[in-house]
Amino acid sequence: MPAQNATLDFVRRLLHREAIGSLKKVLAKLQPADVSDILTHCTPGERHLLITILYVTRQAGPVLAELPDETLRQTLEGLSNDVLVRVLQEVGADDGAELLQKLPKDRCSEILERLPSVYAEKIEEIFRYPDDSAGAYMNTLYLQFHYRMTSREAVDRMRAWFDSHQEPIYTLYVLEETHRLMGTVAVHKLVLAQPETLLGDLIDPDPVCVNDTTPVREAAETMVKYDYVSLPVVDDQFRLLGIIMVDDMVDVMMESAADSAYQIHGLADEDRLETPVTTSLRLRLPWMLLNLLTAFIASSVVGLFEASIQQVVALATFMPIVAGLGGNTGTQALAVIIRAMALDEVEAAAARRGVIKQLLVSLLLGLAAGLITALIAWLWRGNPMLGVVIFAAMVLNMVLAGFVGSAVPFLLKRLRQDPAVGGGVLVTACTDSLGFLGFLGISTLFLGYL
Amino acid sequence: MPAQNATLDFVRRLLHREAIGSLKKVLAKLQPADVSDILTHCTPGERHLLITILYVTRQAGPVLAELPDETLRQTLEGLSNDVLVRVLQEVGADDGAELLQKLPKDRCSEILERLPSVYAEKIEEIFRYPDDSAGAYMNTLYLQFHYRMTSREAVDRMRAWFDSHQEPIYTLYVLEETHRLMGTVAVHKLVLAQPETLLGDLIDPDPVCVNDTTPVREAAETMVKYDYVSLPVVDDQFRLLGIIMVDDMVDVMMESAADSAYQIHGLADEDRLETPVTTSLRLRLPWMLLNLLTAFIASSVVGLFEASIQQVVALATFMPIVAGLGGNTGTQALAVIIRAMALDEVEAAAARRGVIKQLLVSLLLGLAAGLITALIAWLWRGNPMLGVVIFAAMVLNMVLAGFVGSAVPFLLKRLRQDPAVGGGVLVTACTDSLGFLGFLGISTLFLGYL
Repeated sequence: MPAQNATLDFVRRLLHREAIGSLKKVLAKLQPADVSDILTHCTPGERHLLITILYVTRQAGPVLAELPDETLRQTLEGLSNDVLVRVLQEVGADDGAELLQKLPKDRCSEILERLPSVYAEKIEEIFRYPDDSAGAYMNTLYLQFHYRMTSREAVDRMRAWFDSHQEPIYTLYVLEETHRLMGTVAVHKLVLAQPETLLGDLIDPDPVCVNDTTPVREAAETMVKYDYVSLPVVDDQFRLLGIIMVDDMVDVMMESAADSAYQIHGLADEDRLETPVTTSLRLRLPWMLLNLLTAFIASSVVGLFEASIQQVVALATFMPIVAGLGGNTGTQALAVIIRAMALDEVEAAAARRGVIKQLLVSLLLGLAAGLITALIAWLWRGNPMLGVVIFAAMVLNMVLAGFVGSAVPFLLKRLRQDPAVGGGVLVTACTDSLGFLGFLGISTLFLGYL
Repeated sequence: MPAQNATLDFVRRLLHREAIGSLKKVLAKLQPADVSDILTHCTPGERHLLITILYVTRQAGPVLAELPDETLRQTLEGLSNDVLVRVLQEVGADDGAELLQKLPKDRCSEILERLPSVYAEKIEEIFRYPDDSAGAYMNTLYLQFHYRMTSREAVDRMRAWFDSHQEPIYTLYVLEETHRLMGTVAVHKLVLAQPETLLGDLIDPDPVCVNDTTPVREAAETMVKYDYVSLPVVDDQFRLLGIIMVDDMVDVMMESAADSAYQIHGLADEDRLETPVTTSLRLRLPWMLLNLLTAFIASSVVGLFEASIQQVVALATFMPIVAGLGGNTGTQALAVIIRAMALDEVEAAAARRGVIKQLLVSLLLGLAAGLITALIAWLWRGNPMLGVVIFAAMVLNMVLAGFVGSAVPFLLKRLRQDPAVGGGVLVTACTDSLGFLGFLGISTLFLGYL
C-alpha cells in the first residue's frame, strides 16, 4: 500500500518546483483512487495545475470519477467545457452520467450537445432511468459478443477494445442475433479454449440477470448472493442493455446497510448531510408531529397522576431515570433485531430465540439498574419504600422495553411496513408512556408509604 | 432470475415423488446460492435427502458455504464425519475454515485430523489469525505463477487447476523466486498475449496489497477504494500468503456500515442476535451504568426545581415533551453525521455546512413543535404564560439538540474516539439535562405568572 501522506508531500513539492516532467511520471504510476486522494487534500490552485497535467496524460477522467462530491463540484467549476468534453470520453457512460449530474442543468445540456452522439445518447439513456433503478447504474458501453464467433475472433475483438479502454473484462456476454442475452463466458474459459471453438459452445446458459427497472438494491443483493463481479441488465425481451459492476454495487449495499439503522429515528433515506434544508424539513416534519403526538400521550399519562406528584414531588425527580433507561434498553433491542434483518441474518428459528434473549438481557439489566436506583433513592430521600417502588417500576419498564424493542420490527414486517422506519419513535413512545404509567401507577398505590 | 418459489415447489414435488434422477438434473442447473435458498425453506427431512443428492453430484460444499448460520448448524449436525471430510475439500480453505468453526471443538479437530494434511494445514493457518484480521479471510489455496513462466505455461497451469476447481480466476499473482509478490496480470491480458511472452513482461508492478495482520475492515476499504475484485495478502517480507475475494469483503463492508449506526446506542459490534446472554450483559453493563449516571444528572436537575414543580405541578406533565422531542432531534442530527462519516462522505468543507444545516433544521422544527405545544398548553391549562415558557424552552432545547447531535461525532473523532460509539447516550444526556434546566429554569423565573 502506498504511504499516502508521503506521496502527497512529494507531489506538492514537485508542484511548487514546477517539475512537470517528474509529476507526469509520478502520477502515471498511481491508481486513480490515490490521485483522487491527493487532489482532495490540495488547495484549489494546486488541484487546477494537477488536473491540467492529468488532462495531458489522459488520466483526468478516471480520477474525476473517484473524487468525493464536494471536491468534484469545485473541480468541475474550474474546468472549461472543451476540457470536460474530452475528459468525459475517458470514462464509461455510467461514470460520465454521474459527473454530468454534478453540473448545473444548462451546462450539462451544452456539454451533451458537444459529445459524440453515440456517447451522448448512452448518457441520456441513463438519465431517463429513475435514480434508484438498475438502469441508472449500468454501463452501456460494453463489449458485445455473438454466439457464432470463434474464440479467436473474440480475442481479436477484445484486443481492439483494450486499445482504447482500460477497464478490465471478467465476463463475456454472448448475444443471439436478436440481441437477446444467450449466456456468459468467463474470461478464463476463453484463455483455455481452442482458437476455433465457438463462443456458443463455451457459454454458461441461463445467466442470472436483472431488468433495467429493477430497484438497484435488488440488483446489488442479487450480485452479492451469487458472488458475481458483474451483472447483465436486460429489457423485457431479455435483450442486453448494459452491465452493472460490483464496485458500484458495494456503495449501494453499504448505504442500504447503513440506512436501516438510520431510519430507526424517523430519518428518510434521502435526508443526507448535503440535502437542502427545505427537503430535510419536509421529510422530518411528519415524524416530528408523530413524535409530538406520542410525547403528548406520555405527558397525559403524567397528567393523570398530578395529584400524586403534588403530594410526593420526588416522583417527578425520578421520572427521567425510568424513562431514560427504558428508552435506551428498548432502542438497543430494536437495533440488534433491525441490524440482523438488514444483513439478512434472521431465520425463523433464530427470531424467536432472539426475542427471548433480548427479554432476558433486559430483565437482568433492569434488575441491576433497578437495584442501584432503589439504593440511591433510599439513601437520597431516606425513604426505603420509594426505593421499592422505583425498583419495581424500573424492572417492569426495562422488560417491557426489551419486548417492545424486539417485537416492533417483526410486527412492522408482518404489516408489510419497512421494519426500520420510525421503529425508534414507536419504541420510545411505548417505554415513555408505559414507563410513566407503571412508575406513577405503582407510586399512587403506595402513596401512603412514600 | 429464477422464480424461486416455483423452483422450491418443483424441487419439493420431485422429492416427494423420490424422482432422484430428475432432482439431480434440476439441482445441477442451479447456482449454489439458489440451492441454499431451497434448503433453508425445507423441512429437516427434505434437507437431509437433498444434501445426500448434492453429495453425490459433488455440489454439497459450495451449497453449504452459502447456508445461513442456523440452517447450516442444523445441517452439519446431520452429516457424518466421512461425508464432511469429502465435502470440505470441495471448497476453498477460507470457506472450509468457516464451516468447521460452526462445529463443536472436538468434532472440528477430529475432522481436521482426517483431512489431507495440505488442506488441514491451510485451515489451521486461518484459525491462528484473529477473527478481524485480513489473514482470517484469505483463501490460501490459490494458483501460483512465476515471472519467468510463458503465457502458454500459465495457460496450461490454469487448465490443470480448473480440472479440479470451479472458482473463477480474474487476476494472476506473479511471484519471484523468494515467493515475494512481484506484480499482477489481469486474465484478459493473458488472453491477448503471444504464447511465448513471459509473465514478467505482462505484469503490472507495485500491486496494492495488505498485510495478513491488517484489520479486515481496512482490507475491505482498500478493495473498495481501488475497485478490485481480489486483493493479495502478504507477510512482512512481501511474500504472498493468500487472496481475499470481493464477495467476502462485501459482507465486511455492509456490517461495518450497519455498525456505526448501531454503536450510537452503546451497542458493541459483537452484540448480535446470536450472542450469548452473558456476553451481551457484559458488553452492555458499562453503558447501562453510564446511562444511569447521566439519567441521575438529569434527575438532579429536576431535583433542583422541586419547589417550582410543587407550586405548578403542570411543569412535571410537560417535562416528557421537552425531553422527548429534544432527544429525537439530537439523535437525528447525530445519525446524519455518523452515517456520512461511516460512508466516508464528510469532507472538511462539507462538515461545517453540515453542522450549520442541522442547527437550522432543528431551529425550524423547534419553532414548529414549540408553537404547537404552546398552543396546546395554553388551551389545556388556560394559562398563556405557560405556553410562552414552553415555547421558549422547546426552541432552545431543540437548537441545542441539533448542535450537540452534530458536534458530538466531530468531538469524539478529534479525541481519537470512534465517533459512533455511545454518541446517542451522550446526546440524550445533554438534551435531557439541559432541556430540563432550560424548561424548569425559565419556568422558575416566571413562576409568579404561571
